[in-house]
Amino acid sequence: MGKSNLDLVCECDNFPYYEDDRASYTANLTNYHTFKVTGYDATLGYILNSVVEKFPWSPNCWAIDSTARTVTLVAPANADPALRSKLVAESIAEAVRQDKFEVLRGWRNEKYPVYGPGGEFLLDMERCASPLFGIVSYGAHMTCYVEDAQGLKIWVPRRARNKQTYPGLLDNTVAGGMCTDEKPFECIIREAMEEASLPEAAVRAATVSRGCVTYSHVRDARAGGETGLIQPEVEYVFDLKLDSQTIPTPGDNEVEEFKLLSIPEVQEALARGEFKPNCANIMIDFFIRHGYLTPENEPDFLEIVARLHRRLEYPTASHCAR
Amino acid sequence: MGKSNLDLVCECDNFPYYEDDRASYTANLTNYHTFKVTGYDATLGYILNSVVEKFPWSPNCWAIDSTARTVTLVAPANADPALRSKLVAESIAEAVRQDKFEVLRGWRNEKYPVYGPGGEFLLDMERCASPLFGIVSYGAHMTCYVEDAQGLKIWVPRRARNKQTYPGLLDNTVAGGMCTDEKPFECIIREAMEEASLPEAAVRAATVSRGCVTYSHVRDARAGGETGLIQPEVEYVFDLKLDSQTIPTPGDNEVEEFKLLSIPEVQEALARGEFKPNCANIMIDFFIRHGYLTPENEPDFLEIVARLHRRLEYPTASHCAR
Repeated sequence: MGKSNLDLVCECDNFPYYEDDRASYTANLTNYHTFKVTGYDATLGYILNSVVEKFPWSPNCWAIDSTARTVTLVAPANADPALRSKLVAESIAEAVRQDKFEVLRGWRNEKYPVYGPGGEFLLDMERCASPLFGIVSYGAHMTCYVEDAQGLKIWVPRRARNKQTYPGLLDNTVAGGMCTDEKPFECIIREAMEEASLPEAAVRAATVSRGCVTYSHVRDARAGGETGLIQPEVEYVFDLKLDSQTIPTPGDNEVEEFKLLSIPEVQEALARGEFKPNCANIMIDFFIRHGYLTPENEPDFLEIVARLHRRLEYPTASHCAR
Repeated sequence: MGKSNLDLVCECDNFPYYEDDRASYTANLTNYHTFKVTGYDATLGYILNSVVEKFPWSPNCWAIDSTARTVTLVAPANADPALRSKLVAESIAEAVRQDKFEVLRGWRNEKYPVYGPGGEFLLDMERCASPLFGIVSYGAHMTCYVEDAQGLKIWVPRRARNKQTYPGLLDNTVAGGMCTDEKPFECIIREAMEEASLPEAAVRAATVSRGCVTYSHVRDARAGGETGLIQPEVEYVFDLKLDSQTIPTPGDNEVEEFKLLSIPEVQEALARGEFKPNCANIMIDFFIRHGYLTPENEPDFLEIVARLHRRLEYPTASHCAR
């Protein structure tokens, strides 16, 4: 008996919900400090108490309140994102020097943005440090598929066996994290070339935005590094219907191979737990949008749809050019 | 300056969220009693305190606890759904006799089901009474569209001017509430014939399940009757692509006329507030699924997607034949 679709969704969206058990939700929150920035009345992330204890907070730019359980970046009133990011980067660099955290050994040299109320860009930080601060991270995931007389088939890559996170698991056709200043559509175009060698013009012309999947993940051992870190995520979702002549092929060292799988083959791989957890969510969302999972064949339909679209309790980005 | 898409979504999903303001959320709940059934540890709905005061609760089958703020249907331990439904029906009939509530003047002679934990069917009650008890109601909404060289157009009906609720407003092509024992797909087939005169075989063959939209609505004057009643709803979503020869026409007295509107025409009507509120949600969901609203042209994209898929804090139905 394999994993149900709800099992898969719950593995990814595994931070508790207030309405399920008010007392236990509130008790769980006492394991965390809230991450704040002076001048902004918003929780930007949750930091595990054990991280707060170990992190080499410089008193020059951090205020720790262990009663209110807050960690506040104290920047001058006229601070801009560049200054805030510099202060955070120096603190993270010190944590790296002292080799305080396993997750910091996986340095990516990519910057992840942090947004305040109204989607204001506040600062950015090295990608691998983001789970320590529990900030919302953003990515774009695309499912490439072909449709013929036998039905719909999906191009499914297997992650390289030497990847730092989730090695050897199945993934979405194209997926990537969005760095500071990157927009969802351009992120997908770039990743489609880098990871899947898909021709830019064809991808640009036929890629369709289909919504997003959001969840709040508490990391376990499979993610590598410290466990219990909160990682709220937004994954913008795209579909791309390919003709039978266009074959994705690995373009960098991230992907081992691409296989064209039927819907039942993808469903069996999901039930065996072969997909990277958040990629399973994207597949389940695809099946719902394309009519393969319905209220009449999926017993947990309503819970699944809601948990694929969790309302995050933090300020989030707007990628819209207003 | 018309209504934004977020304005529209917030009009429909207007019950507060805990994470936005914990104190005000908790304070707001003191305006309601929870609706329970003996033997089940679940909140089945919220009943406005003023309704609790006015309703002619028979002490034979109702226990009111004004400290815990609960209204509990007290049925024998061996009660089945038929007995519970009979007790509720007798109580509602007494409220009708005493003409206690405006909403009960809109008798529909349709039964809405109430589900307990695990999707167990507990009882049903007359449709027009459901907002008094704040129970989750279920419906199915379908968008019929045509696609040609000029792009996609949507068949939009206008509600009859003499409808009890939301007269004269724009609606989804086919939509209806789901009574006890009805399944989403069969509900849409039935409504497509009744409301839009669409041929059953064509609808059966080409209708595609696309997910669901969920929200928690607090009724205002436009719904008719008492205001402040909570109406949590699940709307199963379907799409049907029609050829240019298939023209929906009013089949009963619910619809005044159908018009084929372009995407910009629908968007303008939405901004003018011409759609029935929950039908606006279904249109916005359609635009997201079909790539017309994207993270890069809709400033409130993330908030909109989450609020179109609210996780309801009540047990809900499973329409799956397990």
